[in-house]
Amino acid sequence: MKHLLSIKDLDRDQIIGLMDEADRFREALEGREVKKLPTLRGRTIFTVFYENSTRTRSSFETAGKWMSADVINISASSSSVKKGESLKDTGLTLKAVGADALIIRHPSSGAAQQLAQWVTPGGDGPSVINAGDGAHQHPTQALLDAVTMRQRLGSVEGRKVVLVGDCLHSRVVRSNVDLLSTLGAEVVLVAPPTLLPTGVENWPVRTAWSMDDEIVDADAVMMLRVQQERMLGGFFPSHREYANRYGLSKDRLARLKKDCIVMHPGPMLRGMEINYSVADAPQTAVLQQVSNGVHLRMAVLFTLLAG
Amino acid sequence: MKHLLSIKDLDRDQIIGLMDEADRFREALEGREVKKLPTLRGRTIFTVFYENSTRTRSSFETAGKWMSADVINISASSSSVKKGESLKDTGLTLKAVGADALIIRHPSSGAAQQLAQWVTPGGDGPSVINAGDGAHQHPTQALLDAVTMRQRLGSVEGRKVVLVGDCLHSRVVRSNVDLLSTLGAEVVLVAPPTLLPTGVENWPVRTAWSMDDEIVDADAVMMLRVQQERMLGGFFPSHREYANRYGLSKDRLARLKKDCIVMHPGPMLRGMEINYSVADAPQTAVLQQVSNGVHLRMAVLFTLLAG
Amino acid sequence: MKHLLSIKDLDRDQIIGLMDEADRFREALEGREVKKLPTLRGRTIFTVFYENSTRTRSSFETAGKWMSADVINISASSSSVKKGESLKDTGLTLKAVGADALIIRHPSSGAAQQLAQWVTPGGDGPSVINAGDGAHQHPTQALLDAVTMRQRLGSVEGRKVVLVGDCLHSRVVRSNVDLLSTLGAEVVLVAPPTLLPTGVENWPVRTAWSMDDEIVDADAVMMLRVQQERMLGGFFPSHREYANRYGLSKDRLARLKKDCIVMHPGPMLRGMEINYSVADAPQTAVLQQVSNGVHLRMAVLFTLLAG
Repeated sequence: MKHLLSIKDLDRDQIIGLMDEADRFREALEGREVKKLPTLRGRTIFTVFYENSTRTRSSFETAGKWMSADVINISASSSSVKKGESLKDTGLTLKAVGADALIIRHPSSGAAQQLAQWVTPGGDGPSVINAGDGAHQHPTQALLDAVTMRQRLGSVEGRKVVLVGDCLHSRVVRSNVDLLSTLGAEVVLVAPPTLLPTGVENWPVRTAWSMDDEIVDADAVMMLRVQQERMLGGFFPSHREYANRYGLSKDRLARLKKDCIVMHPGPMLRGMEINYSVADAPQTAVLQQVSNGVHLRMAVLFTLLAG
Repeated sequence: MKHLLSIKDLDRDQIIGLMDEADRFREALEGREVKKLPTLRGRTIFTVFYENSTRTRSSFETAGKWMSADVINISASSSSVKKGESLKDTGLTLKAVGADALIIRHPSSGAAQQLAQWVTPGGDGPSVINAGDGAHQHPTQALLDAVTMRQRLGSVEGRKVVLVGDCLHSRVVRSNVDLLSTLGAEVVLVAPPTLLPTGVENWPVRTAWSMDDEIVDADAVMMLRVQQERMLGGFFPSHREYANRYGLSKDRLARLKKDCIVMHPGPMLRGMEINYSVADAPQTAVLQQVSNGVHLRMAVLFTLLAG
Repeated sequence: MKHLLSIKDLDRDQIIGLMDEADRFREALEGREVKKLPTLRGRTIFTVFYENSTRTRSSFETAGKWMSADVINISASSSSVKKGESLKDTGLTLKAVGADALIIRHPSSGAAQQLAQWVTPGGDGPSVINAGDGAHQHPTQALLDAVTMRQRLGSVEGRKVVLVGDCLHSRVVRSNVDLLSTLGAEVVLVAPPTLLPTGVENWPVRTAWSMDDEIVDADAVMMLRVQQERMLGGFFPSHREYANRYGLSKDRLARLKKDCIVMHPGPMLRGMEINYSVADAPQTAVLQQVSNGVHLRMAVLFTLLAG
């Protein structure tokens, strides 16, 4: 594996392999005060973020540093992007600087794939890791979600996973649908018709309008962030209407199966897509997702750079 | 000691203990070319700054790196804060990522304490260090000020310390008043009535209007930065009027006791609260405060994370 | 050598010495997976950037980290600069924090030299490295350019180097003219009269209007970035006119000598000063310049801090 651009590029064994590797890193570090492995010493990792992020950037930075890599952050707001440099030239420049990996977040779908073609035309060059490109893919998110499900539910295969909310703008949905269907889970998308992507009828999922009908027998309910920053001028339900129809309220939480887990890729808008106290309920796996994220990203960096 | 949130939480012995530890770090590193101790190897420290800072952030980052910790910076301008994430969820996320310490600067008084309650509800979790919360507290500043006074004056007890200027918006004042009174110094606040906090009559200090009367027998004069960015729409003396009445001019410097020291938490506005050349006078301890700041922060990190 | 402020401060031997050192670092690291030398362990390097930059800042950060230094980044947009702190006080503060080197980029010509005087009044204090000050100097750029020319052409002496474009705003031009003339190259500046600096008649260069006449027998053609952000309200040729007269088109590339190299300090504006595909032609040394930049900056840091 040279790059991690999309879950679509991975087969079942590769997915399971990365998940297992993440579990091994978790076990290796669990309870240790000194979280430092020499694995990637002398490797140089760049995070190149054209969009804001707390959890993803700091998760990758932590993963790299715990494996003793040098991690260098580039953010669009203080970089040559402002002088008009293209993504291609930024990528080639960082390759020439000596990057072993480029971790990119970009508002345009396909940016990571494009970057990978530019920096490794003949195969040699830095590994590219897609940390979210537009509404396209966010593969490490789907992988850490699967690690979390397996940890809490015992398996992913055969489970019913309901994704609720703004599916139109969500790269998390696309990556999860690809991964969950590959692993043999049943996937249901619940969303207002205006927030469903076109072409969804060709996806390996079922769509539904009623959240209440779908969540009662779900094994996992994955709430999506309402991406207001991407809804420029489009129709949008009011906050109250959205929360009423697609929010995870206390009432709805009470109607879930006893061992159903609640997931959210974060950042959560409490009071919008998830009730304030539901976000802290024992069934909620949000923080476990975050923890698994570091171990999963260690697994990805290890597999791409030293595997 | 789990957190460092406010000087009010510390008793005399704890204050002296941290000051002594800072002195030990200074002595251990003094004159060494290679400033690197293995003390905190494998510990992960996040700086989470919701306000601008050069000296405090870089001082903490230096302190952490000199003790071999991994230091990861989060700034409000490029983080999920912009997507509407709450401080609570940012804190819980960084805890889940694996933070051993969260160093927070925030415009709201009480933010650090609140964060500590959120991330260590049962006692376990990262240490929170308050690097300045609104007009409330900035405990490492008061501690490094005390280290500097003791270094220059021999002791803090029994010394007369005059704090001059914008006491209303100053977390530095509050932390210093708490610390200096605990150590038995005499504290005088000199400020225009509009820049004195309400309730100051219950503080263990004396207030005065005339700078000239108070500084002549002072052992330390601490000039405060005029925090124009916090004075939205309020009454404010003109620059010239402020400099005349509350600025440390060359004339006033000449009237200080020979061994009185001049302090400033920085950043200084030369020409405003302190005369341009006075800022560089031998009596001025500003840069010594900065140096002691690194050693004091090493002491704090060491005490909280490895003590 | 204490600081690196301007090529004008260096004699021939010092220039060659730094170039040779850069070559040694390249050879030492070439083909190594683990790019990590213990050379500057325990040294603290601050990058202090008052202007945007991808390549220069990340190149210095990489150079420092590959030699095991602690590198701490300060950017003007999130620092005390916003509270009104002067460059002098920022420099003195970072010295007091414990900086061994300050790498500064600043919009004002002379800022680096001024900073060096402030932080090392008696000789002691951090080394200052000029990473670009206004339209004045960018010495590491000229040095890495010379390393690249020597590598590709065998020597710099006696070579004809043509610099094309916006010479008025370019610190790259000034540093290169100084260096190339010291090493005995022939330097020609091709620019519209409105983009030539005043006083250029006293420089050790020839100026010319016709790009086509000059490039046919050149050994190196150095294209300059059009610095639109510095052209506030001044006369400026239209994009098409500029590209026609001073852009490196495919036709012009075809008329170069077979072994002539094409250089650009980056970031490139493809389609403006350089044709899109010319930027990727085999004669183009842009990415080699970037790679050499890291090794040259390692050489500079090593020479100043451990030499």
